[in-house]
Amino acid sequence: MAGFLQAGGRAVVVAIDHPLYTWPVPGLERRSELIEQVVEAGADALIASYGTVRDCRAVFGRARAILKLDVTVVSVREYRPAARLGADAVLTLVELGTEGELAALASAARVAAAADRVGLPYVCEILPVASPAFPDPFAPAVIAGATRAAAELGAHVVKTAIPSPPAGIREAVDCGVPVLLAGGEPAADRKAYLAGLAEALSAGAAGVAVGRNVWGGGDPAGTVRRLASLVHTGRLR
Amino acid sequence: MAGFLQAGGRAVVVAIDHPLYTWPVPGLERRSELIEQVVEAGADALIASYGTVRDCRAVFGRARAILKLDVTVVSVREYRPAARLGADAVLTLVELGTEGELAALASAARVAAAADRVGLPYVCEILPVASPAFPDPFAPAVIAGATRAAAELGAHVVKTAIPSPPAGIREAVDCGVPVLLAGGEPAADRKAYLAGLAEALSAGAAGVAVGRNVWGGGDPAGTVRRLASLVHTGRLR
Amino acid sequence: MAGFLQAGGRAVVVAIDHPLYTWPVPGLERRSELIEQVVEAGADALIASYGTVRDCRAVFGRARAILKLDVTVVSVREYRPAARLGADAVLTLVELGTEGELAALASAARVAAAADRVGLPYVCEILPVASPAFPDPFAPAVIAGATRAAAELGAHVVKTAIPSPPAGIREAVDCGVPVLLAGGEPAADRKAYLAGLAEALSAGAAGVAVGRNVWGGGDPAGTVRRLASLVHTGRLR
Amino acid sequence: MAGFLQAGGRAVVVAIDHPLYTWPVPGLERRSELIEQVVEAGADALIASYGTVRDCRAVFGRARAILKLDVTVVSVREYRPAARLGADAVLTLVELGTEGELAALASAARVAAAADRVGLPYVCEILPVASPAFPDPFAPAVIAGATRAAAELGAHVVKTAIPSPPAGIREAVDCGVPVLLAGGEPAADRKAYLAGLAEALSAGAAGVAVGRNVWGGGDPAGTVRRLASLVHTGRLR
Amino acid sequence: MAGFLQAGGRAVVVAIDHPLYTWPVPGLERRSELIEQVVEAGADALIASYGTVRDCRAVFGRARAILKLDVTVVSVREYRPAARLGADAVLTLVELGTEGELAALASAARVAAAADRVGLPYVCEILPVASPAFPDPFAPAVIAGATRAAAELGAHVVKTAIPSPPAGIREAVDCGVPVLLAGGEPAADRKAYLAGLAEALSAGAAGVAVGRNVWGGGDPAGTVRRLASLVHTGRLR
Repeated sequence: MAGFLQAGGRAVVVAIDHPLYTWPVPGLERRSELIEQVVEAGADALIASYGTVRDCRAVFGRARAILKLDVTVVSVREYRPAARLGADAVLTLVELGTEGELAALASAARVAAAADRVGLPYVCEILPVASPAFPDPFAPAVIAGATRAAAELGAHVVKTAIPSPPAGIREAVDCGVPVLLAGGEPAADRKAYLAGLAEALSAGAAGVAVGRNVWGGGDPAGTVRRLASLVHTGRLR
Repeated sequence: MAGFLQAGGRAVVVAIDHPLYTWPVPGLERRSELIEQVVEAGADALIASYGTVRDCRAVFGRARAILKLDVTVVSVREYRPAARLGADAVLTLVELGTEGELAALASAARVAAAADRVGLPYVCEILPVASPAFPDPFAPAVIAGATRAAAELGAHVVKTAIPSPPAGIREAVDCGVPVLLAGGEPAADRKAYLAGLAEALSAGAAGVAVGRNVWGGGDPAGTVRRLASLVHTGRLR
Repeated sequence: MAGFLQAGGRAVVVAIDHPLYTWPVPGLERRSELIEQVVEAGADALIASYGTVRDCRAVFGRARAILKLDVTVVSVREYRPAARLGADAVLTLVELGTEGELAALASAARVAAAADRVGLPYVCEILPVASPAFPDPFAPAVIAGATRAAAELGAHVVKTAIPSPPAGIREAVDCGVPVLLAGGEPAADRKAYLAGLAEALSAGAAGVAVGRNVWGGGDPAGTVRRLASLVHTGRLR
Repeated sequence: MAGFLQAGGRAVVVAIDHPLYTWPVPGLERRSELIEQVVEAGADALIASYGTVRDCRAVFGRARAILKLDVTVVSVREYRPAARLGADAVLTLVELGTEGELAALASAARVAAAADRVGLPYVCEILPVASPAFPDPFAPAVIAGATRAAAELGAHVVKTAIPSPPAGIREAVDCGVPVLLAGGEPAADRKAYLAGLAEALSAGAAGVAVGRNVWGGGDPAGTVRRLASLVHTGRLR
Repeated sequence: MAGFLQAGGRAVVVAIDHPLYTWPVPGLERRSELIEQVVEAGADALIASYGTVRDCRAVFGRARAILKLDVTVVSVREYRPAARLGADAVLTLVELGTEGELAALASAARVAAAADRVGLPYVCEILPVASPAFPDPFAPAVIAGATRAAAELGAHVVKTAIPSPPAGIREAVDCGVPVLLAGGEPAADRKAYLAGLAEALSAGAAGVAVGRNVWGGGDPAGTVRRLASLVHTGRLR
């Protein structure tokens, strides 16, 4: 279904869409160089904005392009350029427990249906946010509710936060579509971070979709290689 | 008109669209397994969200798929995927006496007309809600007003609450289109619940459309079999 | 232009669109039976909602169907089903002096132009409402302003209230399009009501468009026959 | 460009679109008769609403029809009936210094572009209104700013107020498109009114677009003849 | 990509779109004459509103027309007239740190994608505004964030403010698309202004897009010649 998943249904995805919203973004100053490095190191796909996909698609090489929509593409009509510019999938973000939740869900549903019409997989990034509705946004049942909502509205792949404990992702995986683990805030303790990923992958997660934890510190290529080993072979190199 | 009604114009419908809005939903953790069970037990149709219809349509077997629209499909353009993904009917929800009443009625009317254009039956789920306009939302005249409004705006089938007393559904049935009885809150007294259904069915209701009262307790398959017997033969097994 | 007007440019229209908004509506419980009676008695056309036109068109016989739009049809795209389902004209309601006045006028204008595009006559029901702008909503000049506004924005036929005195309709008739007299509240004094109609018809009104005063009391067929005699021959039977 | 301008690039336009918004409008009670009179007397064009253009186009004779859009036509799709019903140009109103200014400018721009698409000239009626932004709405620089804004957004012809002094129109005429002088409030001193018109025409205005000052007093035909003499020959008859 | 860039990827652009929003605009009273002067003096392109491009395109000669959209063109449908009327590129304005920021970004993204569909380059004018989010809107990192956001959402060329110090534009130039330097407020010290431009051009800016600093003082032609020398040869004449 989602072409960026490897044969085993697993994927290492690198997110580089941050500069549309924030700056400076240390590590992302030169997008082409970074793309080249992470693709070379084994990234299966990148999440990027419209301008980056259009202008740097050639640099992606064999990696797939997941077009982040949100502000940059708002109506169904926009999908045709998406396909034309070489996007292999589309993604929108839903933050549960926020004021914009309902609009984001409706938008996600429209995108899912529209993506089906043009034959592109839709990745729903769905993140519970600390709020009266979700006092503990990392509780396994909360994460599971998020992934199930995404599956119900038509996502082909879900990207969500790692629950606490990470093995709690098992409940979320029951939603019936592949679940990618978001990277989130830069990890202070790298070892613990990777151990958590390993635990969640063992519990059924299909892969990772990481940004700052790949390119925010030094050696993005090395980090991608470590993630690829973990995701595709289950071993930490 | 509505293909999910059996030869006698009657139907047992199971609703499984709850996880789009709420979680956990005990009994619905694994949608495919549940669908298989209730279809095997005799469900004529299921009410499900976009993602579930798209991904699990094959499991429905001979049961029909009623696509719940609301947040998941908002414009007329979306009907084509509806048909393509194997939906046999579409449904929207109208809550009378709430702030969103007028918008929901207008949306229902648009969906009814659009459904006619593509040849899909439209099921209008219309529920009076306790409010200044409806101090007694289960009064037979209130339920009858709801079903008539649905018929006027173009529903092919109406799903509404069981009035009190259940035989009061007779007035609602005069609206001219088949009326299905919603399941509502899980029944504390199962026997009384089934007796009420039997009374309403005798008074002219065309069938039931039940969710939590099927899969919220144990033995969903047994419950469907009991409902099917009641609806199609008038006998409680 | 408006095919439901008889050779003499006159018409008896019965409105049965009330149950979309209110219930109970004594006299309208069973729509098919009532339609049959009033058509048999000589009604030239009926004003009905989408669901009623679609489901009962065959019962209309030689009477024309005027589709009430408002909540039930909101965009130009909807006209095609209108024509397909056998509507002979479309109608929207404008209440002058209310908060929604401007939106209703704009909607009326859009409907008028859209109706021209598909070749359907547009009936504008335009009613001044007691308000700071219209302290006396039945003053002949107020009614005349309403019919002229309707003519300016593109109505082919206008339905409005009977002014006081009824002969004051003469000023309204100058607007250049046929004017139908709305029935309004059930008349306490039936004789006075019919005398008023007769006076307004003599002064140039093209006919009547009556609801509750036809089917709200007993003998709808007899009332239609009396109205038909009055409208088409000028005689009270 | 604008076919209603005579060979010399000048025009006498009569506005009769008032009854859509206000009533009674003394002098406009019977639209057909008035149209006939002013056309016979030499009006080059009339500004009228949708219903009037559609129903009375034949009476216009050799005079052109300028369709007033605003409330009556809101989207680009509506232009096709405009052309079909015999409109030779379209017009919208912008009131500068009011709350609706920005929306009216955006609408004017859309109409200008849409009119170009179907080959109809667009007349922008743009009037500064006394307000904090325009304490003196008749100052020549204010009127000049209005006509230039209209030219920038794509008007083919501008209709605006006569500045004070009238010769101040010279600055406005530099905007590069023909400028018509609006009639405004009925003039108390007819002679002074005509002298002002003469002064503004000498300073470069292309003509007049007058309503109440034509048909609000007696003898509309005589007034049109006087205006035609003034506009086309520069002489007051 | 952007045809108005000279062979060396550099351009002198003159902005003349001011009269749509403000008046008087000393120096822009007669648009045709000014266009002729600056084109003759070597302007590579002009930024102008819809009416000016449509009515004065012939005067542009070999200079390209960059159509300023904003209020004047709001939907994708409008691009066809843009191309038809001879526009070579389109431009919208985003002011960061203002209330309208998000809407302007979304609009910019839509325009970028729509421009790709019809093959027109999109110029994003993006200006940080003094605000809580940007206490120093001319800081190099702030300007760099602006140009990178524009590149991410799909701009082919960016127009932004000169940072302080001007050489700080180097960080912004890394965004990957050509950066034009906006003219801004009329410079009090002309010499210092040109020295700043020279510094920013040396640091990688692709050219200038200047309005008031060209035609707001005397000798617009001379100013354009000086800018052209600076931009295309790196020498101040």
